[in-house]
Amino acid sequence: MKRRQFIKGTAVAGVAGVAASSFPAPAISKDTMEWRMVTTWPKNFPGLGTGAELLAKFITEGTGGRLSVKVFGGGEIVPAFESMDAVANGTVEMGHGAPYYWKGKAAAAQFIASMPFGMTAQEQNAWFQYGGGQELADEVYKGLGCKFFPSGNTGTQMGGWFNKEITSLEDYKGLKMRIPGLGGEVVKAAGGNVVNLPGAEIPPALQSGAIDATEWVGPYNDLAFGLYKSAKYYYYPGWHEPATVLDNFINIQAWEKLPDDIKSVVESANTAVNQMVLSEFIARNNASLRSLVNDHGVVLKKFPDEVLAGLGAIAGKVMNDLASGDPLSRKVMDSILTFRKDAKAWSVVSETAFTAARHLDFPYAEASKG
Amino acid sequence: MKRRQFIKGTAVAGVAGVAASSFPAPAISKDTMEWRMVTTWPKNFPGLGTGAELLAKFITEGTGGRLSVKVFGGGEIVPAFESMDAVANGTVEMGHGAPYYWKGKAAAAQFIASMPFGMTAQEQNAWFQYGGGQELADEVYKGLGCKFFPSGNTGTQMGGWFNKEITSLEDYKGLKMRIPGLGGEVVKAAGGNVVNLPGAEIPPALQSGAIDATEWVGPYNDLAFGLYKSAKYYYYPGWHEPATVLDNFINIQAWEKLPDDIKSVVESANTAVNQMVLSEFIARNNASLRSLVNDHGVVLKKFPDEVLAGLGAIAGKVMNDLASGDPLSRKVMDSILTFRKDAKAWSVVSETAFTAARHLDFPYAEASKG
Repeated sequence: MKRRQFIKGTAVAGVAGVAASSFPAPAISKDTMEWRMVTTWPKNFPGLGTGAELLAKFITEGTGGRLSVKVFGGGEIVPAFESMDAVANGTVEMGHGAPYYWKGKAAAAQFIASMPFGMTAQEQNAWFQYGGGQELADEVYKGLGCKFFPSGNTGTQMGGWFNKEITSLEDYKGLKMRIPGLGGEVVKAAGGNVVNLPGAEIPPALQSGAIDATEWVGPYNDLAFGLYKSAKYYYYPGWHEPATVLDNFINIQAWEKLPDDIKSVVESANTAVNQMVLSEFIARNNASLRSLVNDHGVVLKKFPDEVLAGLGAIAGKVMNDLASGDPLSRKVMDSILTFRKDAKAWSVVSETAFTAARHLDFPYAEASKG
Repeated sequence: MKRRQFIKGTAVAGVAGVAASSFPAPAISKDTMEWRMVTTWPKNFPGLGTGAELLAKFITEGTGGRLSVKVFGGGEIVPAFESMDAVANGTVEMGHGAPYYWKGKAAAAQFIASMPFGMTAQEQNAWFQYGGGQELADEVYKGLGCKFFPSGNTGTQMGGWFNKEITSLEDYKGLKMRIPGLGGEVVKAAGGNVVNLPGAEIPPALQSGAIDATEWVGPYNDLAFGLYKSAKYYYYPGWHEPATVLDNFINIQAWEKLPDDIKSVVESANTAVNQMVLSEFIARNNASLRSLVNDHGVVLKKFPDEVLAGLGAIAGKVMNDLASGDPLSRKVMDSILTFRKDAKAWSVVSETAFTAARHLDFPYAEASKG
């Protein structure tokens, strides 16, 4: 496949109709470049695939078509989990996925994606932007031949779909579960039989009994996937992925060749998409959850505190062991734990206290609707 | 003052050094335009003023200097609270502040800023982007002669600085407090004597005894302001501003004349800044809170649940009354309450459940540090 596709002298969609403006001539170059973005998601998959499309849109429109980005779903150019290779070797210029998919190439990537019992989405963003996280992630991705941007966040995920109730840690013994990243390591340490599958392969695996349980994302995606057809119990909270970072990875040579103005557009486009993907999940999850419970008979259950505390203890040990085997993982994990300590303390007096306060029995909504 | 300042044929900072790239010619126009942004904040004030600077940077860099934005602190061109007039009448092209400062011109603006016991920052973002909030805010700001963008968020604020303890609702009677927006209306209904002051005027007013109490933002800003010098008790949570939207308001004619590519850059720049301002607060608040408590002897206190429930009941009534007098306020409030109902339900099974889980007594951080 061609390294790059230059389209010269072609009219580009999205920049038409500016002539009527009295603004100084936009001086659009006739030279435009097309980049291809491979993704680990099914094309246009809610929140994830649509996030990739939004990113392409912001970059293409913000550069007036000078850099036009076209999105490909998992499997269209390369299989989903070969997206990183395709970008690193220059088959395509950029990709969109989640950092823990690359843990086989860089163990530290899974700490960047999400840490069990770790941080919320806004705490992760703050770590990237004001806690040294961007620099550490760039160090990890440089080893993969890429420039890194956080490019979406799922927010707090659900704990997963199970065909039997989880009443104690014992229930994880022998459980065949699809759960990636560090959460998977914790379940493995708890006695589970862990597999990793790309999104599209989960529903058939659950239906055939190849796996007993799976986590995926949250109600918005899980409803779309039809996971309720194959499992009865839907557990919360997603202790294993309290918020999960999506990544935009760009071939490092391609990135470095970009002029400064386009680099800036790519950076702000990613930061914008990072926030908008989270917004989509926050806006859509509850209606989907209602549908799962009311229309599809799903049984919503909270993990018992005893199970959460047990998994938390295992998580601490597992992550410490993993970090001990890899200096870069240690550096990333320690940076996150330091940041998390302050973030957690601040959360107690801010959002945690507020969300508790708004659940007191006010006659608020009723009065306001009256 | 000149309506616009055209700078023709001038080299613009930030676009130098692209010639070495093999990327198609950037084709930078020699025509550039300079816009001025007035703000309600002291120049470079942490989080708020720095947010305005970030916005100017992203727009200037992302347009390769075709649209260069210069930031002015409150009082530099016009007094802080005249920023909206200056933008609406075309003295300058854009401004940065907070929607509730314009409640005298458009009552609905205060509902857009923050609602007592309302939504968290990520819920507000989701409402703007996927709940119809952007369209409603545009309707409100169109009446002010402006295009609206959410352009920063403080996250959950603190409840405020008090010189006496708040043990019951009675303590609000006769209290002279600086508290803007809907929170101010609630305190007024609770018997308080409410004043509105721009940021720079708060410390002298508190010191002189012109006010007994004030809220401002949170530890990061309040430490910088030195508010601890004039009040002893620091209350949480900020029930009155569970998260507060900052606004970027652009003269509507100036906005409509922008070519599509620059409009796109301005939109993604605002969305990026909206997220980064929140990140700055999340990253900085706790260290500042520690300093307030440990270095300055501030007494941190939680509002009693009884007081919160009482204020919640008053809030419901006050907001309903306000909305009854203004159809646009009613439309905005009802849209928020509908969205909030789902967001609140989702929060219970996601972040609220997660933050409770991570406060169980895991040996997590210790083991990981070992």
